[in-house]
Amino acid sequence: MSAEPRWIIGVDVGGTTLTVGAVPMDGGRPEAVRVQSTGRDTRGERIVSVLAGMVQATLDELEELHGDGRDRVAGMGIGSPGPLDRTRGVVVETPNLGWRDFPLRDLLSEAVDLRATLDNDANCATYGEWWVGAGRNAGNVVGLTLGTGIGGGIVLDGEILHGTSDVAGEIGHMTVSLDGRRCKCGNEGCLEAYASGPNIAARAVEGIRAGRRSILGDLVDGDLDRVTAATVYDAIVRGDAYARQVMTETARILGAGIANLLNLLNPEVVVIAGGVTRAGEHLFEPLRAEARRRAFKSAVDVCRIVPAQLPEMAGLVGAAGVYKKEAFGSV
Amino acid sequence: MSAEPRWIIGVDVGGTTLTVGAVPMDGGRPEAVRVQSTGRDTRGERIVSVLAGMVQATLDELEELHGDGRDRVAGMGIGSPGPLDRTRGVVVETPNLGWRDFPLRDLLSEAVDLRATLDNDANCATYGEWWVGAGRNAGNVVGLTLGTGIGGGIVLDGEILHGTSDVAGEIGHMTVSLDGRRCKCGNEGCLEAYASGPNIAARAVEGIRAGRRSILGDLVDGDLDRVTAATVYDAIVRGDAYARQVMTETARILGAGIANLLNLLNPEVVVIAGGVTRAGEHLFEPLRAEARRRAFKSAVDVCRIVPAQLPEMAGLVGAAGVYKKEAFGSV
Repeated sequence: MSAEPRWIIGVDVGGTTLTVGAVPMDGGRPEAVRVQSTGRDTRGERIVSVLAGMVQATLDELEELHGDGRDRVAGMGIGSPGPLDRTRGVVVETPNLGWRDFPLRDLLSEAVDLRATLDNDANCATYGEWWVGAGRNAGNVVGLTLGTGIGGGIVLDGEILHGTSDVAGEIGHMTVSLDGRRCKCGNEGCLEAYASGPNIAARAVEGIRAGRRSILGDLVDGDLDRVTAATVYDAIVRGDAYARQVMTETARILGAGIANLLNLLNPEVVVIAGGVTRAGEHLFEPLRAEARRRAFKSAVDVCRIVPAQLPEMAGLVGAAGVYKKEAFGSV
Repeated sequence: MSAEPRWIIGVDVGGTTLTVGAVPMDGGRPEAVRVQSTGRDTRGERIVSVLAGMVQATLDELEELHGDGRDRVAGMGIGSPGPLDRTRGVVVETPNLGWRDFPLRDLLSEAVDLRATLDNDANCATYGEWWVGAGRNAGNVVGLTLGTGIGGGIVLDGEILHGTSDVAGEIGHMTVSLDGRRCKCGNEGCLEAYASGPNIAARAVEGIRAGRRSILGDLVDGDLDRVTAATVYDAIVRGDAYARQVMTETARILGAGIANLLNLLNPEVVVIAGGVTRAGEHLFEPLRAEARRRAFKSAVDVCRIVPAQLPEMAGLVGAAGVYKKEAFGSV
């Protein structure tokens, strides 16, 4: 008779960071976590090999910490940028890593000899927040991750909304300004074209180049190409009025996008993750005000718009939750 | 022992038209249909009394046509503009009819002695198209009705998405232009502010007042206040280049909104209903082109964007479907 499983391995594949850890079956705090830079060589075979090593290290540490061997590990959930084909476990395309039709799930599964599931990274992050984070016990949850891009996920009655071809939840590419800024997806006026980290920085720099006064230039020794969203945040903390204005405008645009989500999906919780949330109330206060101004009152009144509770670990935990749901029918 | 039910009464309450009919249990073509102008006196009590008379007439005709008495009628589904509270069967607010916290379901149910359900009119229309119309057998269906306003409904895996407080599906009030046209909801840049019937007319008239040449003025004997979306359509049929341009621009804006729906919900079918669809390919061709240009390819490739198949009857049929689902567990 095999032992009762106590852990699920969670794997979060990101353009800049790879994260692996052991998630307790009840969604508790991950243990034996490994974090590593994705590195410049993002060829699929190399990343699989790196991930396999990280998984093995996590398994070894589980043995050390708890005396739990492989018989205590139910399987492995993998989160990856997409679009992807969940049924086949294939990453169809991911510009940040340069993959095309890459069978990530099966290659990693075979490499570490664990059964595995694959889902979109932003879906996993939202699912993690719904399972044990800021959206715990909520009916409908929408998640946004503001990073290099803007990822999104939608969880309705405890189920990730995948849609007809696993594309659902692409909140970052919602048009909010018909003839607006060009987005790297080729479209104009996407939410991401304004409110991703790099675009917040780009908008800030454009203003300075157009003559706006700010300490932002000083913070990067005059090299405006080095301004990031984090620099904008640092300038706000130092009292820079222009940086604050950039953040308020970002919040206004995000608030309009979130108002759309409120009117369309009427969620109970909107969870916002990613580095930009470091701006705290400089972001959330004007964002909530704009969402409230734009969306239907009865949608606003029932919705909490809150920061993520598992900022670094949501993807990992959610990926494990996806595996649990698939293998056991519920989390 | 009671007889096997064969019919469900469908009731569609609109700002301009009231429609009542008997829908066969299998969602077949409605019979004994009654259509009546809503009239200027929209007080709730009067409308309930008018509707009760229409329902009675439908019941009488069922008896004449098929010898089917009340024992053959399972119940009644009501569709009404919202927002509404389905659990209590109350219309919370509807600007077009001037109602507030009006217990439509129970008043009409008592007046005609039939058990009843209440749901949003645009939800019902989308549900009808999913059940037996253009979205038949599709997994995820999004419906838009372009009329005095823009109504929307979302059906996922055969379930209407209601959201946390019955607001979900308000597609007409999606912001597509951050600082765009003022909408009657108080917001700026809503889809409805561009593409509802009255706003299509208003945009056409604004262009003419700004000096654009068109036969639109001639079609209304010089009284531009009388231009409607139908006039714009008539001008297109007569070869008016400006009217056609107004429709193309309308399609472009609708296409951007629909691209958002494709990226967010990844539906299999988008069904578009309402008078504006009379413009046919003048509307659908540029609309599909814009959605294709803006949305993710894998979302576009799996989605049909099509006119409604039950244009006048979708609300009625869908309302009956909602009742059937509630009373019998499935349609």
